[in-house]
Amino acid sequence: MSFEILKKCQGTAARRGVIKTAHGEINTPVFMPVGTRGSVKAVSPAELNELGAEIILGNTYHLFLRPGMDIIRKAGDLHKFESWNKPLLTDSGGFQIFSLSSLRKIKENGVEFASHIDGTRFFIGPEESIAIQKTLNSDIVMAFDECTPYPCSHEDAAKSLRMTTRWESISREQPLNPGQQIFGIVQGSTYKDLREESASELVKLDFDGYAIGGLSVGEPEDAMYQCLDWTVPFLPEDKPHYLMGVGLPKQIVEAVARGIDMFDCVLPTRLARHGTAYLSNGDTLPVKAGRYKEDFSPIEEGCNCYACKNFTRAYIRHLLSVGEILGLRLVTLHNLHCYLSLMAKIRTHIENETFTEFRASFA
Amino acid sequence: MSFEILKKCQGTAARRGVIKTAHGEINTPVFMPVGTRGSVKAVSPAELNELGAEIILGNTYHLFLRPGMDIIRKAGDLHKFESWNKPLLTDSGGFQIFSLSSLRKIKENGVEFASHIDGTRFFIGPEESIAIQKTLNSDIVMAFDECTPYPCSHEDAAKSLRMTTRWESISREQPLNPGQQIFGIVQGSTYKDLREESASELVKLDFDGYAIGGLSVGEPEDAMYQCLDWTVPFLPEDKPHYLMGVGLPKQIVEAVARGIDMFDCVLPTRLARHGTAYLSNGDTLPVKAGRYKEDFSPIEEGCNCYACKNFTRAYIRHLLSVGEILGLRLVTLHNLHCYLSLMAKIRTHIENETFTEFRASFA
Repeated sequence: MSFEILKKCQGTAARRGVIKTAHGEINTPVFMPVGTRGSVKAVSPAELNELGAEIILGNTYHLFLRPGMDIIRKAGDLHKFESWNKPLLTDSGGFQIFSLSSLRKIKENGVEFASHIDGTRFFIGPEESIAIQKTLNSDIVMAFDECTPYPCSHEDAAKSLRMTTRWESISREQPLNPGQQIFGIVQGSTYKDLREESASELVKLDFDGYAIGGLSVGEPEDAMYQCLDWTVPFLPEDKPHYLMGVGLPKQIVEAVARGIDMFDCVLPTRLARHGTAYLSNGDTLPVKAGRYKEDFSPIEEGCNCYACKNFTRAYIRHLLSVGEILGLRLVTLHNLHCYLSLMAKIRTHIENETFTEFRASFA
Repeated sequence: MSFEILKKCQGTAARRGVIKTAHGEINTPVFMPVGTRGSVKAVSPAELNELGAEIILGNTYHLFLRPGMDIIRKAGDLHKFESWNKPLLTDSGGFQIFSLSSLRKIKENGVEFASHIDGTRFFIGPEESIAIQKTLNSDIVMAFDECTPYPCSHEDAAKSLRMTTRWESISREQPLNPGQQIFGIVQGSTYKDLREESASELVKLDFDGYAIGGLSVGEPEDAMYQCLDWTVPFLPEDKPHYLMGVGLPKQIVEAVARGIDMFDCVLPTRLARHGTAYLSNGDTLPVKAGRYKEDFSPIEEGCNCYACKNFTRAYIRHLLSVGEILGLRLVTLHNLHCYLSLMAKIRTHIENETFTEFRASFA
């Protein structure tokens, strides 16, 4: 595992870096499209390559349930199963267990839960999570944690954090596949003392990278930024910093300014399926709306994605309105292009020492 | 309009030809993917180009209802609206009016019907159908006809045919856009005398091509072949022959042997969305079935479509089973590749004078 910082921004904590993995290099700051169940929704690996995606996510909880680890093992690993030869990051499953499953029983060494699909009971703790992620053979493995909801009392957040820290310590002890890296996840809800405690404890475990979890779960935007301001200074500067599940384009720019290198979020793909397109300034365009039915301009003038180079808002609106799959495919391609282009712009601005101006100009 | 026959098969009525249109050439025998509502379901124009599609269909009835002719007119035409620069064929709307709409009132000069979407009442006759197809600006326009259901008494079929012949005659009289061609449609259900009458009457109107309609509507396969045997000899040899809505791979091979040059069918795209793949021998593979969940071979060994070169049955089965859009995209690509490859094989066999053997070998 190696993370190289190529350039630091003067005036903000933004960094331009490269993460080296067994499946290739990742230029940071990076946005990771989410491939929950073995596919980034509605797009193909060939399209992800054309879009310039350098790493995608897989969700441990979903893949554990379907297709299940037997099939992944027989396929070789998740790269081979889904035909994605570039880097993969898998989450620990913790977030989904706590947000999707039911009848949870939290125990000393993990969680017993009922599948949200058919109610089958399973047990996953740090050892099980890492074993699953070894079967998936992701390049970046995440330590097993509990993600607290928002709001959360200090008492509950502290109790959850102690358990998470113990689970992450067990995660760290598990031997990994050759080439796999493991990141720890800072929790602690919106409390300064807990965030600091979490970061400090995790740093002792010497992870390959550090994620900040438990944000973008309903807290005000300012609280998210404040948590970053509290937490990042406690993380090793020479390791990648990953803000999980974030977020809006503006939040990404602000988090980069606070020293974050990696992002993932379902928004560009999810909003696309609901007929909403992102614009490069971070605004959204509800292209499915009736008011675009005679608008023969592209989603965004000057955008060079496949959707904007070939199709009008009127056409895409028609497809979405009658339920043609091509409609949501085109908006998904556009939205991913929009996010990945934003990251490319951020990287160039850091390289050119113009990031501070870019940040100020970003609505 | 020009149709050139490059080679004739010895021993069958199969022909290898080229149709020249304002938007390019079409090599026949040809299969035309169906783009009902302005999109071949689940695939993009770029993918259709990669698959080697030379012409696609648009459905007059569906496009008339949504997005409506106002929007198509403002977009320029259907080519511009859907970003498809190659040849387009539009049907007359007759088949869908008679199969999808309700509360139909057949009048001397057309049909009044209620939209299957919201019940709005419309009137379409030969003049209206051609006017719509002029707005769509398809390269090949179809005359307005009634498609009889199966079974249909001789009396009803004869009565329908007389009306259809009158409507087609009116269709033929309408001035078209520069470069547009118009095909007549032979009807007459499964009755030899009516098929002969229909063909003879239409030939007098000197259409640019001749379609055979009213087949693949539930009649036995042998009845379909018999209708072709009755009808094709009455059609001008130097004009394209189009068998509408057909069909299974084997039926296509048999129809080519009977002198058919053009085909369209929703089967490859529709079956794909239900998780069924075609194989090159005409068999189908229900790839969504549980028995493929640990099958790590491609849909078809040796197939060089994007799906088969990159993904396994197990992966595609997983995607279909959890409802990921990529699953039906991959099967759609494979099925269209399968149909378009079959046509390429047929053309090569006619050129190489091996079509008779190929036909015999085709299951």
